[in-house]
Amino acid sequence: MKETKKILLNSRPEGRPGDSNFKFETEQVSEPKEGEVLLKTEYVSVDPYLRGRMSDAKSYIPPFEVGKPISSLMVAEVLESKSDKLQKGDHVVGMLDWKERQVASAEELRKVDEDKAPLSAYLGILGMTGLTAYLGLTEIGKPKKGETMVVSGAAGAVGSTVGQIGKILGLKVIGIAGTDEKVEMIKNEFGFDEGINYNTTDNMTEAINKACPDGIDVYFDNVGGEISEAILFNINKFSRTVVCGAISVYNETSLPKSISVQPFLIKKSSMMQGFVISDYSDRHSEGVQQLAKWLQEGKLTYTETVREGFENIPQAFLDLFDGKNKGKMVVKV
Amino acid sequence: MKETKKILLNSRPEGRPGDSNFKFETEQVSEPKEGEVLLKTEYVSVDPYLRGRMSDAKSYIPPFEVGKPISSLMVAEVLESKSDKLQKGDHVVGMLDWKERQVASAEELRKVDEDKAPLSAYLGILGMTGLTAYLGLTEIGKPKKGETMVVSGAAGAVGSTVGQIGKILGLKVIGIAGTDEKVEMIKNEFGFDEGINYNTTDNMTEAINKACPDGIDVYFDNVGGEISEAILFNINKFSRTVVCGAISVYNETSLPKSISVQPFLIKKSSMMQGFVISDYSDRHSEGVQQLAKWLQEGKLTYTETVREGFENIPQAFLDLFDGKNKGKMVVKV
Repeated sequence: MKETKKILLNSRPEGRPGDSNFKFETEQVSEPKEGEVLLKTEYVSVDPYLRGRMSDAKSYIPPFEVGKPISSLMVAEVLESKSDKLQKGDHVVGMLDWKERQVASAEELRKVDEDKAPLSAYLGILGMTGLTAYLGLTEIGKPKKGETMVVSGAAGAVGSTVGQIGKILGLKVIGIAGTDEKVEMIKNEFGFDEGINYNTTDNMTEAINKACPDGIDVYFDNVGGEISEAILFNINKFSRTVVCGAISVYNETSLPKSISVQPFLIKKSSMMQGFVISDYSDRHSEGVQQLAKWLQEGKLTYTETVREGFENIPQAFLDLFDGKNKGKMVVKV
Repeated sequence: MKETKKILLNSRPEGRPGDSNFKFETEQVSEPKEGEVLLKTEYVSVDPYLRGRMSDAKSYIPPFEVGKPISSLMVAEVLESKSDKLQKGDHVVGMLDWKERQVASAEELRKVDEDKAPLSAYLGILGMTGLTAYLGLTEIGKPKKGETMVVSGAAGAVGSTVGQIGKILGLKVIGIAGTDEKVEMIKNEFGFDEGINYNTTDNMTEAINKACPDGIDVYFDNVGGEISEAILFNINKFSRTVVCGAISVYNETSLPKSISVQPFLIKKSSMMQGFVISDYSDRHSEGVQQLAKWLQEGKLTYTETVREGFENIPQAFLDLFDGKNKGKMVVKV
């Protein structure tokens, strides 16, 4: 096959992204040169943070360029190798373009073992998702046994992993999610102590207060917005907030306003810190080892939503903003 | 003298406090018992944080009670001592009631040396003000030589001290204040590199950007509100915000709203933490030593606004919210 489909950024979204921001094209696949491999895409990770890269705002990673392919973490099979490091038939993970076939430098790929975990797990629980949960919680949340943690976006890929790690570390864990089904899932499948459905709860501040009679020591924030406001009224002295995501405001066209956090931080000598997994690259391999160990011991489980077909990648991404995923969303190509 | 004037909390303020929230009464002064001393008030500290104690909201220190005396840090002279620790004529500092005369336990007082520094300094640069500046900056701001720091409320007691310590530690220091006179003062008297008058600046974000071409590494926040919003657009990766005060919102009756900080914290892996001096009591004596050393070396200077007369204590406090003080506001009784 000499041609491949690819997905480009067609235009920058204003507010919520839609189909028109994406464009499908075909191109010729080049030949791998020395040190390169030809790859066939197997799984594509779609993640909320990609929304940021679709805008041209300065962020922690550079924006996508209009007219150029979108990229994300992917698992691919090596079809042809001009590198000593990889062989035909190997599976690799790397930050790759949204193409069915492509040539990439072997240096930028990491070989993964299909026997240790399903290939899609390397995009989730053993990939950025698991590392974000593990390193965000331990590095910024600094939880101590017996403390209370609240996780927003609890049924999501990161949130459900954070909750389970919290239980492994001896915390009381309360999750916030958007449907009763998700609330049941985080309690029954992921072992959260309590769950709150923010869509059916009138007074979130009270509901959180009731679920956390000893207050909140660690808040792992995946959503921002109103839910995080309700948290402020329940934080403990010396509490820590891991600001990991703000999916509730990613699509806002004007800067969102919230209750000022400063007076709460002073009152409670409390700390908030932004977390980006790329800052902790020196700890990734340690993290993957720990996560793989817990996974093999059966202490950690995960849910994924697998969509099928290369042409469905944009829709899978768009569905994240409606919370249509349970756990990590990936597309099998 | 057997009678003393005292100032009580007459009612809790809604929004901005006023005269009617205070009440003057007289009472009989009791005799000191074993371990106690009779004190004559010399200097009274008035501070923005007292506004919080006038409300009955839960905070890091308990609220004042209606009908009971207001208290703050004070310097007093020992008139009569029933304690081995203190003698007649000693000067002491302690958290005392707003009374002209009172009996207090010697245990809760600290003797101060009039030869080392003027008595009022023990309420300011060698008291909570100096310690807040020094420990807030070093413990949370964690400044590194060559970094850029912005201080809001820069002409205030804490702010002007933070700026000077920043310069001692090798930072570039930019101060924000509310009059041209204050801006001149922080540059000429306190050695700030730059000053911005927020009352005459249309676009604070741009002005800060211009004053901080390398971005902001440390933000020492005494004010909250709009100024702190403008800071967010200029913070550097891994920046730290010391949330020390929020005088701009202390008198708001509804919860103030601001631009959500979370997306900025994520983008910049940035940290914000509330600072309250009482959390660091184990480091107070170390802090006072360091500050006294800098003071004696002439590296640190301070401004104070001294009002006179016991009956003017409430007005001195109220004037804080109009920024009528330069540096530490104290009342000489």
